[in-house]
Amino acid sequence: MHKKIQIMTQVIAKHNQSPITTFNNLKCKECGAEYELQAIHVCELCFGPLEVTYDYSGLCSQVTRESIASGPNSIWRYRQFLPVASDHPIDVGTGMTPLVFSQRLARRLGLKNLYIKNDAVNMPTLSFKDRVVSVALTRARELGFTTVSCASTGNLANSTAAIAAHAGLDCYVFIPADLEAGKVIGSLIYSPTLMAVEGNYDQVNRLCSEIANTYGWGFVNINLRPYYSEGSKTLGFEVAEQLGWKLPDHIVAPLASGSLFTKIYKGFHEFVKVGLVEDKAVRFSGAQAEGCSPIAQAFKRGMDFIQPVKPKTIAKSIAIGNPADGIYATEIARKTGGNIESVTDQEIIEGMKLLAETEGIFTETAGGTTIAVLKKLVESGKIDSEETTVVYITGNGLKTQEAVQGYIGEALTIEAKLDSFERKLERSRTLGRLEWQQVLV
Amino acid sequence: MHKKIQIMTQVIAKHNQSPITTFNNLKCKECGAEYELQAIHVCELCFGPLEVTYDYSGLCSQVTRESIASGPNSIWRYRQFLPVASDHPIDVGTGMTPLVFSQRLARRLGLKNLYIKNDAVNMPTLSFKDRVVSVALTRARELGFTTVSCASTGNLANSTAAIAAHAGLDCYVFIPADLEAGKVIGSLIYSPTLMAVEGNYDQVNRLCSEIANTYGWGFVNINLRPYYSEGSKTLGFEVAEQLGWKLPDHIVAPLASGSLFTKIYKGFHEFVKVGLVEDKAVRFSGAQAEGCSPIAQAFKRGMDFIQPVKPKTIAKSIAIGNPADGIYATEIARKTGGNIESVTDQEIIEGMKLLAETEGIFTETAGGTTIAVLKKLVESGKIDSEETTVVYITGNGLKTQEAVQGYIGEALTIEAKLDSFERKLERSRTLGRLEWQQVLV
Ligand SMILES: [Zn+2]
Ligand SMILES: [Zn+2]
Repeated sequence: MHKKIQIMTQVIAKHNQSPITTFNNLKCKECGAEYELQAIHVCELCFGPLEVTYDYSGLCSQVTRESIASGPNSIWRYRQFLPVASDHPIDVGTGMTPLVFSQRLARRLGLKNLYIKNDAVNMPTLSFKDRVVSVALTRARELGFTTVSCASTGNLANSTAAIAAHAGLDCYVFIPADLEAGKVIGSLIYSPTLMAVEGNYDQVNRLCSEIANTYGWGFVNINLRPYYSEGSKTLGFEVAEQLGWKLPDHIVAPLASGSLFTKIYKGFHEFVKVGLVEDKAVRFSGAQAEGCSPIAQAFKRGMDFIQPVKPKTIAKSIAIGNPADGIYATEIARKTGGNIESVTDQEIIEGMKLLAETEGIFTETAGGTTIAVLKKLVESGKIDSEETTVVYITGNGLKTQEAVQGYIGEALTIEAKLDSFERKLERSRTLGRLEWQQVLV
Repeated sequence: MHKKIQIMTQVIAKHNQSPITTFNNLKCKECGAEYELQAIHVCELCFGPLEVTYDYSGLCSQVTRESIASGPNSIWRYRQFLPVASDHPIDVGTGMTPLVFSQRLARRLGLKNLYIKNDAVNMPTLSFKDRVVSVALTRARELGFTTVSCASTGNLANSTAAIAAHAGLDCYVFIPADLEAGKVIGSLIYSPTLMAVEGNYDQVNRLCSEIANTYGWGFVNINLRPYYSEGSKTLGFEVAEQLGWKLPDHIVAPLASGSLFTKIYKGFHEFVKVGLVEDKAVRFSGAQAEGCSPIAQAFKRGMDFIQPVKPKTIAKSIAIGNPADGIYATEIARKTGGNIESVTDQEIIEGMKLLAETEGIFTETAGGTTIAVLKKLVESGKIDSEETTVVYITGNGLKTQEAVQGYIGEALTIEAKLDSFERKLERSRTLGRLEWQQVLV
């Protein structure tokens, strides 16, 4: 199982060093109990979630802006901040996705300093899940697992199946039976065993918890969750580095389990802690679909617990009715002066179209949710036009084509003749583009 | 139209310099006649194709490995080798896609030094076309065009529509009416005017030539073709840089018009010419689908002209029956000791599955073609196991889902209960995975 997997870059010689272990143990987020670095995710004393701890003073002496910048063009440039010991992590080029300075979307919304972090082109499977899975499977291999698995709303299934294939690990993937075709095909192509569970994600997740206890498999988001979730910190690290080693003023990210949100926060704080960026206030705002908005509801009502819901939304990839880290997300939004908002399915589609038409980025429903919430926050005065705002786009629109079909017009069919083209062009111009689309739809 | 579009990276300050023009004029590849740098693509004297020429001695003094490495993390790090004058090219993060050192595919094929250049995750639309379109639209803007267009087999349509949206240019896109759903939706989402032409690509292309002569539009692959095609050189530049400023021994790339192939060749030679890499022999091998293989046929029969064909293959994105640069591709394959091979649609599907199962990369039919040809060349002894071989994956499998549906098995549906899972697992293990899939398919 010790495969040497590399991305060749001009700097490969520099980062081919011996293993450096900077992580210490697992610690309960609730009661502080400490555990060895095994495949466990829940505190035996209080059932709280476990989190990886690091030796930050050791980190300080090892890591500089220069050492990171000369590392691989992937999440593994932040290797010392990730919970793996191997000197050959599974590196399929994940991460270092573009941070685009927005012109047209920003102008449309009235923002002056908007950036789009685009994980819709993440390697290999076009979502931010490639980050967490790269970390989880590297750790799984270190812990001796040969079979890996996950409970997924789709993107995680794609990512686990792909990266397991790359690493030569056996793979079982569990999804709700009603997923989009692109997400099903985008898993099957890698030849995992794919189980479609008749039920929603929360039911899939419960089943997988039972299986994880019975079989000796590494479930990336169950028994490997403490390692897995650390991968999301790289979405904080990259933004800070790409902004020229600065933190933004405000971030807007989608909320599913809430884990991504809390880990971007952790990532920013770790960079401050080791002196890579200056400390500053960053506001954290979260996005949910109205059809599955337990975190937004808890936030708005000032609750200190999450009331689970039954999801009903086109934004399936973030449709988690009982979000494990939801309460931590509300805490972060509150203490940073951010907000958590929800939007309707119609607004989600409009958000997808808006991002595509202004920036040329085709995101999935989760990204549409985030853009729609961004718009709502700006319109309600909750994001200032001067704030340096980063919006996180976490997945690709080609995976959720069903969501926009029927809302984006159709092609105009013509014969391969100039006069056929001209007649159609004339007609479309007369009608006007909008009306024309209404005729067609 | 002078929008400032940037990708923020840690080095942004360094490349915000005044414009440097390193390109001279357009030159006929056949008779050598020279033309001004306008929107023309065919020699008025001999109808030969026009190509951009550069001042290589000027380039030598401006460009070093270090200056490139400190440039943006996109194709624009090679700006001096591209035919644009603007100091603010349209940079949406295109290029610098991963070069993956293959372990599992290489072992399966019996190769020791295989690399996969993965443009299936190119930004923004997941194909190498984002490279050529970024260059063409930057040049279109410089030449004063406000409406841009293309004749496309799908990927180019996606890319032109997306990058035109980003740049705020009006956009008309022409495709064959029978394209895959993913490519149609992947264009419409950006709100271009999309014309579906009843006919094959060659008919679409002829129609667009007429339109280009009649309307004042910038067709990226017709009147802007000399600028457009230069963008493909970056697939040569990046591989050389990512290999540690070295050329490979052998490359395998798909052949549609033949342009990509000739431009990778040009890119390698330019790097040699300006002293960025050492000169060496690189073998160029090309891949076509049997259902549209005019270049492979010309190569095998030793012909010095291309006999046009009517395409009939699932590899629609490379189904060009009358390839403009086909003859130049055969010349390069011959003089470098390479080969041009074709494979059946069945082999193409097998190629897609092979790449996904071994490397975790889901490519479209064109990529399946390239992998299948790679396999064929290895098996027939035409690629040596020791050769440093780079295989070019040019597009994403989510765009051609139809091609693999029915060939990759199905999900196993279960209830959300442990015993339902266990019964299904038992049955699938008893049957064996292969038989099981046959039951399902
Ligand atoms: Zn505890
Ligand atoms: Zn000529």
